[in-house]
Amino acid sequence: MPRSGFQVSAGELAERFGLALRGDATRLIDGVGTLAGAGPTQLSFLANPKYRGQLAASRAGLVVMRAADADGHDGDALVASDPYVAYARIAALFEPVEAPEAGIHPTAVVHPDARVEQGAAIGPHASIGARSRIAAGASIGPGCAIGEDCEIGAGSTLVARVTLVRRVTLGQRVLVHPGAVLGADGFGIALDRSGGGEPHWIKVPQLGGVRVGDDCEIGANTTIDRGALEDTVLEHDVRLDNQIQVAHNVRIGAHTAMAGCVAVAGSTTIGRYCMIGGAAGIAGHLEICDRVVVTAMTLVTHSIREPGEYSSGTPLMDSRSWRRNAVRFKQLDALARRVGTPSKGEE
Amino acid sequence: MPRSGFQVSAGELAERFGLALRGDATRLIDGVGTLAGAGPTQLSFLANPKYRGQLAASRAGLVVMRAADADGHDGDALVASDPYVAYARIAALFEPVEAPEAGIHPTAVVHPDARVEQGAAIGPHASIGARSRIAAGASIGPGCAIGEDCEIGAGSTLVARVTLVRRVTLGQRVLVHPGAVLGADGFGIALDRSGGGEPHWIKVPQLGGVRVGDDCEIGANTTIDRGALEDTVLEHDVRLDNQIQVAHNVRIGAHTAMAGCVAVAGSTTIGRYCMIGGAAGIAGHLEICDRVVVTAMTLVTHSIREPGEYSSGTPLMDSRSWRRNAVRFKQLDALARRVGTPSKGEE
Amino acid sequence: MPRSGFQVSAGELAERFGLALRGDATRLIDGVGTLAGAGPTQLSFLANPKYRGQLAASRAGLVVMRAADADGHDGDALVASDPYVAYARIAALFEPVEAPEAGIHPTAVVHPDARVEQGAAIGPHASIGARSRIAAGASIGPGCAIGEDCEIGAGSTLVARVTLVRRVTLGQRVLVHPGAVLGADGFGIALDRSGGGEPHWIKVPQLGGVRVGDDCEIGANTTIDRGALEDTVLEHDVRLDNQIQVAHNVRIGAHTAMAGCVAVAGSTTIGRYCMIGGAAGIAGHLEICDRVVVTAMTLVTHSIREPGEYSSGTPLMDSRSWRRNAVRFKQLDALARRVGTPSKGEE
Repeated sequence: MPRSGFQVSAGELAERFGLALRGDATRLIDGVGTLAGAGPTQLSFLANPKYRGQLAASRAGLVVMRAADADGHDGDALVASDPYVAYARIAALFEPVEAPEAGIHPTAVVHPDARVEQGAAIGPHASIGARSRIAAGASIGPGCAIGEDCEIGAGSTLVARVTLVRRVTLGQRVLVHPGAVLGADGFGIALDRSGGGEPHWIKVPQLGGVRVGDDCEIGANTTIDRGALEDTVLEHDVRLDNQIQVAHNVRIGAHTAMAGCVAVAGSTTIGRYCMIGGAAGIAGHLEICDRVVVTAMTLVTHSIREPGEYSSGTPLMDSRSWRRNAVRFKQLDALARRVGTPSKGEE
Repeated sequence: MPRSGFQVSAGELAERFGLALRGDATRLIDGVGTLAGAGPTQLSFLANPKYRGQLAASRAGLVVMRAADADGHDGDALVASDPYVAYARIAALFEPVEAPEAGIHPTAVVHPDARVEQGAAIGPHASIGARSRIAAGASIGPGCAIGEDCEIGAGSTLVARVTLVRRVTLGQRVLVHPGAVLGADGFGIALDRSGGGEPHWIKVPQLGGVRVGDDCEIGANTTIDRGALEDTVLEHDVRLDNQIQVAHNVRIGAHTAMAGCVAVAGSTTIGRYCMIGGAAGIAGHLEICDRVVVTAMTLVTHSIREPGEYSSGTPLMDSRSWRRNAVRFKQLDALARRVGTPSKGEE
Repeated sequence: MPRSGFQVSAGELAERFGLALRGDATRLIDGVGTLAGAGPTQLSFLANPKYRGQLAASRAGLVVMRAADADGHDGDALVASDPYVAYARIAALFEPVEAPEAGIHPTAVVHPDARVEQGAAIGPHASIGARSRIAAGASIGPGCAIGEDCEIGAGSTLVARVTLVRRVTLGQRVLVHPGAVLGADGFGIALDRSGGGEPHWIKVPQLGGVRVGDDCEIGANTTIDRGALEDTVLEHDVRLDNQIQVAHNVRIGAHTAMAGCVAVAGSTTIGRYCMIGGAAGIAGHLEICDRVVVTAMTLVTHSIREPGEYSSGTPLMDSRSWRRNAVRFKQLDALARRVGTPSKGEE
C-alpha cells in the first residue's frame, strides 16, 4: 500500500470511531494491511473467521476484531461489533486522495448550452452535450462523453472514459468506473412482416432515460440502458460491480448489490437489500421482492415473492464423471416415470 | 418522455401508416407513452395480452391495438394486425433527433490518408486512421477511435467512444453503441513446446477483418473480433444487444437477433432469423441452421440442424431444495443403472 | 488478407524455421491463407485433423503439416511436428505492421510529473497521469487514459481506449486491447447496520494495485480490478480473451489462458498452465492448482487440488424435452430416496 504520510495514535482511532481499545493508546499507526502483510505501524482486521489462524503470527501493530477474538489475543486490539465496517471506516483515513483540480481542462469540449457549476472538475478530452448540467463538486474524468440532457449531482465522480448517452440523471456522491455506458438505447426491435420483402427488424424508439439515486456505485464496463418510454431506475445506495448489464426499464431497489457480470433483462423490478451473485441472469418482466439472495450463475426465470436464497445449476465435477451423469439428465423424465413420480409430499 | 413539439392528428396517423381509425380523426397527438402513463394527447399501444387489463383505465388519447381488442374498447383506437410494429413506426415521429453537425470537429484527428466525405460528421476527440473512409451522412461520435483500413457506410452512426481497430467495414445505416470494439485481434494462441525453456504461448497473427452488413445494430460494450485469415461477418439486419462477444471468424446470418451478454466462440456459423437468449454461450466451430431459438443462459455445444427452440440448465429453486437435489446430480448415472437404463423409446 | 508486399521462397522458409521441405525450394510465397482460400503464392497449414479433407482440393502453394499428412500429399509441404506453431511463426512475417510513430501526439495530455521515455509513442487524445512512466518502445494508442502511479514496460502496447486507473504495472511486451480497464476499484463494500437509519453500504477503500507480468495479452473490454490491500497479479505469459472480469486480489499463474467472458471472483488463486473455457465462473477465495482445464460455462465453487478437466451444467436439448426433464430435477432427491441412495462405490 502506498504511504499517505498520515499518522494517528491508537487512542485517537478508538475515540474517533467509538471503539474500545485494548493496548497502548500512544502507538502510532500510519497505514493498513492484511493480517499476513501488515507491520508494526499498520492496522489490520479480523472479520472472516477463516483468517483467525493468521492472528497469532500477525505483525500488525493494531487489529480490529470482535470482543470474543480479542479476549484470547496478546497484541493491541480495537474491539468492534462489526470489524469489517470499522476497518472500512478507518482505512479511508489512509487512502491517498488527489482531488481533481476544479475547472474545465483546455482539451475538454463543453456545449454552449451545457452548465458546469463552479467547483466541478472536467478532465482532459471530456465532452459535455447540450442542456447537461454538472453540479459543484462533481468530477468528470479523462475521456468521458456526456451527451444531451444529463444531470450529474454534487460530489459524483465519473472516473474516466464513462459514457452517459442521453437523459441520464445521477444523484449525489455517485461513483462510476471507467468504460461504463449509461443511457444507450434499450434493445427494442419488432419484426416487420408487412410489405412484399422478407421480414426484417425495425427499431422501437427508445425515448426514456436513466435515473440513478444518491450513493450508488457502478462498476467498470457496466451498461445501463435508457428506458423505452419510462426511465430505467436505480434507487439510492445500489452497488453494481463490473460488466453488469441492466436492460431498459429495469428498476433496482435501494441498497441492492450485484456482483460482476450479472445480466438483468428488460422491465424487471428488483427489490431492496437484494444480493445477486456473479454472472447470474434475471429474465425480463419479473418482480423480485426485497431481501432476495441469488447465488452465482443462477438463472432467475420467474418472479420471486418470498425473501430467501435462490439457486440453479449443477455441482462441479471432474469432466469424466460429469459426462456420465449429464447424459442421464436427458433420461430424467423417463427414469422418474419408471420409478413412479414422487408424490408432492416427497418433493 | 421529452416533448418534441411535433403534433399530428389521429386521422393523419391512420392515413400515413395505413391503419383503420376508430374514433375522432381530429384528435391531436403530440407524443407516446405506456398504457399506464400516457395522457390524452399521447398515443399508446396494446400488443402483449398481459397488459390488456390496463386498457380500460388508460388515459391515452389513442391506442394502437388489434381489431379483436378494439371491438370491446370505448376509447379511440388505431387498428393494426401487428400493433407493436405499427407503434414502433409511429413513435419514430416523436423521437427528438438532433442530427450531429456535418464536418470535422476541431479536436478530431484525421489521418491525411483517410477520406471523410462531405456531409459526414466527426465528433470531438475522434480519431480516424490511415486509408479509412467515412461516407456521406455517417456520424462518428465523441471519443471514437477508427484505425486503419476501415470503411463506414452512408447513414451509419457510431454513437460515442466506439473503437474500430483495423480492417472493419460497416454497411449503410449501421448503428453502433458506445464502448463497442470491432476488429480487435481474435484470440489465437499456440503453445510452443519447442526449445529448451518452459512451454509458452505464441500469438497466431490475426490478419482478417470484420464485415458488418446494412441495417445492423451493435450494442454497448459488445466486442466483435477480426478474423484470423478470413473475415468475421455479420450479414444485413443482424441485431446485437449489449456486452455480446463475437469471436474471430464467426458468421451471423441476416435478421438474427441476440440478447445481452451472449458469447459466440470462434469459427461458428449461425443462420438467418435466429434468436439467441441473454447470456447464452455458443461453442466454436459449430453450425447453427436458420430459425433456431436458444433460451437464456443455454450452452450450445454441438451443431444444430433443425429449426426450433433449444435449452440447457436447471430450474430455479430455493437454495436449500436446490442443494438437496443438486448433490444427487452426482449420483445420476448410478441411480439410472440401479433402476435400469431407460430404453430409447422412453427418452 | 492484405498484401504486405513481402516475398520469400519455400527454401528460405524451411531454413529459417528449421523445417523439412518437400517440394520446390524456389517457389515464392507472399502471404498466408486457409486451406480452402489460399492461392498458389500463399502458405496454409493443416493442424486440426477435421480439415484433412480440404487438403487434396487446396490451391495453396505450400502447406505446413505433420510428416504423416505429408506422406500422402502431392503438393509442396513444410513438415513440422507442431504445424500450428510453425504456421503462427511464419505468418508473422506477412503481418503488415505499421509501428506507431514515436513521440507524443500534440493532442495528448501528459502530466508534468509523468515520464515518457524516448522512443515511446503516445497517440491522439491519450492522457498520462502523475508519476506514471512509459518505457521506451511502448505504445499508448488513441484515447487511452493512464492514471497515477502506473508503469508500462518496454515494447508494451495499449491498442486504443484502454484505461489504467491507478497503480497498474505492466511488464514488457504486454498487449492490451481496446476498452480494457485495469486498476479500477475492487468491489469492496460492507453493510453498516450501526446508527439509527436504515442499514447502508459503506465502501471499503481499495488501496492495492494491479501487476501484469511480461508477455501477457489482455482482451477487449476485459476488466482487472486493483487489490484491496495487496495487488491483483497476473504472472508472465497469461492470455486473457475479451470481456473477462478479474476481481480484486486474484492471482493468475504463468501461461494460464482464459477464453472470453470468464468471471473470477475476489481473492482466488489460479495456477500455471490452466485453461479456462468461455463464460466459466470461478467463485472467490478458492485455490486452483496448476494444469486445470475448466469447460465452457462451468461454475467452479470449490478449490481444485488435482490437475484435470472439470465441468458443470446440463446437456443441450430441444426445449420441449428439456422442460420435461428439467422439471424432474426438482424431484431428484425424492427419486433417489425412493430408489435407495446409491452406495459410495456406485458413484
